[in-house]
Amino acid sequence: MPYINIKITKEGATAEQKAELIRRATRMMVEVLGKDPATTVVVIEEIDTDNWGVAGETITVRRKQQKRGV
Amino acid sequence: MPYINIKITKEGATAEQKAELIRRATRMMVEVLGKDPATTVVVIEEIDTDNWGVAGETITVRRKQQKRGV
Amino acid sequence: MPYINIKITKEGATAEQKAELIRRATRMMVEVLGKDPATTVVVIEEIDTDNWGVAGETITVRRKQQKRGV
Amino acid sequence: MPYINIKITKEGATAEQKAELIRRATRMMVEVLGKDPATTVVVIEEIDTDNWGVAGETITVRRKQQKRGV
Amino acid sequence: MPYINIKITKEGATAEQKAELIRRATRMMVEVLGKDPATTVVVIEEIDTDNWGVAGETITVRRKQQKRGV
Amino acid sequence: MPYINIKITKEGATAEQKAELIRRATRMMVEVLGKDPATTVVVIEEIDTDNWGVAGETITVRRKQQKRGV
Repeated sequence: MPYINIKITKEGATAEQKAELIRRATRMMVEVLGKDPATTVVVIEEIDTDNWGVAGETITVRRKQQKRGV
Repeated sequence: MPYINIKITKEGATAEQKAELIRRATRMMVEVLGKDPATTVVVIEEIDTDNWGVAGETITVRRKQQKRGV
Repeated sequence: MPYINIKITKEGATAEQKAELIRRATRMMVEVLGKDPATTVVVIEEIDTDNWGVAGETITVRRKQQKRGV
Repeated sequence: MPYINIKITKEGATAEQKAELIRRATRMMVEVLGKDPATTVVVIEEIDTDNWGVAGETITVRRKQQKRGV
Repeated sequence: MPYINIKITKEGATAEQKAELIRRATRMMVEVLGKDPATTVVVIEEIDTDNWGVAGETITVRRKQQKRGV
Repeated sequence: MPYINIKITKEGATAEQKAELIRRATRMMVEVLGKDPATTVVVIEEIDTDNWGVAGETITVRRKQQKRGV
């Protein structure tokens, strides 16, 4: 009956990649803890880069710095 | 002071249905636990069917199987 | 397939009250949105009153003020 | 390594305001608890006013009442 | 920079099993989406069986039924 | 009406430190976004170091390495 919530920045993850995350996260719960896959729920949330911060900066700002080679 | 977070797939819930969820969830906290409705917060999140998995499959895939009678 | 997360302060909710929340929250999803109860998940989290704040104050402090009639 | 999730109604917060929330939330974890900013994550979620309820009513309804002076 | 929250019932997962969930969830984000493991955060929450419901019943009740062969 | 959820590792944050987080997080919502403090909710969750992972390792393991000077 596990519930897994994956939050990532919205930067173009494809439907196939998200389906793969769901498959693997479910299999992980079965293999590591013997959980029933039928009631394993995975919810992926994609967050705008303006709304995600690390080290006090938005990802929007960090991506610009990476492009400029900062 | 309860906080209730309801996650559902984004499949056309109307504003009226969401208002009804908020009314009933709030009343539930008052009637079952005697909570103060004034500080009861309900947040509904609607998740794309590509981003929700059960039993290792996305809801997008499950809906297609249901339509095909699988 | 809904997922409902209820956060309340840890102030003595009984097992029966929590079972009642689970029953009612599940029925609500069925009656309002036609969801399948079999895959409706409800998770209740009980939070220490030191760890919950409203209006900038902990619930621990607010409960003491209520007792003193503040 | 703290994780801070801020949920607000979607009512026009600017990119600069969100960047300021991220800066201040991160600084708060450093100053109050001595946490490492490099691994402090802040995620802001903006929720439609139809999907947020207080006191059993949606924010959409409450905003209309405020405008009408109710 | 992903954030993964895993909620399971508190039924004796060992420290080693939880470490394995953290390893695999992190590797999954690297392999499927090319994320940086250094900023991938995994948080596991273990929930009392009285506080988790599926199909309108607590896991406490469901476990008793399973033992009785219901 | 904001809702702020702060997750930290359970490593001895005092009641006073948690009250300070609640005060500052609430003031931040007022000062940055003009929110009403009366309906600003802050919930702090303290997570066992075995249950928190960064870079694929539990915080329990990372703390031991830090002590050994690794």
